[in-house]
Amino acid sequence: MKEKIILLAHGSSDTNWSNTFVRLTEPACADNKHVALGFMELSEPSLEDCIAAAKEEGFTHVSVLPLFLAKGRHLKKDVPGMLKEYETKYSISSVLLPPIGEHPRLADALCDIIEETI
Amino acid sequence: MKEKIILLAHGSSDTNWSNTFVRLTEPACADNKHVALGFMELSEPSLEDCIAAAKEEGFTHVSVLPLFLAKGRHLKKDVPGMLKEYETKYSISSVLLPPIGEHPRLADALCDIIEETI
Repeated sequence: MKEKIILLAHGSSDTNWSNTFVRLTEPACADNKHVALGFMELSEPSLEDCIAAAKEEGFTHVSVLPLFLAKGRHLKKDVPGMLKEYETKYSISSVLLPPIGEHPRLADALCDIIEETI
Repeated sequence: MKEKIILLAHGSSDTNWSNTFVRLTEPACADNKHVALGFMELSEPSLEDCIAAAKEEGFTHVSVLPLFLAKGRHLKKDVPGMLKEYETKYSISSVLLPPIGEHPRLADALCDIIEETI
């Protein structure tokens, strides 16, 4: 299995908003062909763009890591529906990971940010 | 200046959603009377509840750290408007910090999460 990780943000018509995600993911994506940033809606590249690119690059599986703090309707319904469609369309397998806000590393980072703030 | 840090999440009618923020902030809030979690809307305690509590505890300043990944309308307009109102109402000074998604520590945490995922 050749796996690509897609960091999935919501997307926005405000480019300042989406640029925050470009900066946030820069260290993770830099010189790493296994990681890419994509957007659910309103910004580009779309989730479908990312999956099409992964397929073309020879990946057989994508893991989608949501750049969301918690699981709402988008992660419970919309994204699973999109992935189901793209799995068939691009003959690629996929898994939707828990949002980053559920990860203990994020709680650690928050403690560090607070310490720096005080 | 006696400062309290309010970790401000959006809020939701879905308690699973808001509980993610309770867990995310548990290590930061545990045994620390200088840090509290609050919600902008739909969940409790509200931002106003947190500011009223801070005032009662003797704090003279609150720093609001948004548990948002990027700055949208809420952080550009709604929350500043609320803080302006509460500053007057509770005779307390406040500052709205950048959202956690703009902090380099979050980019580091994301790299760690990806490494654990691969």
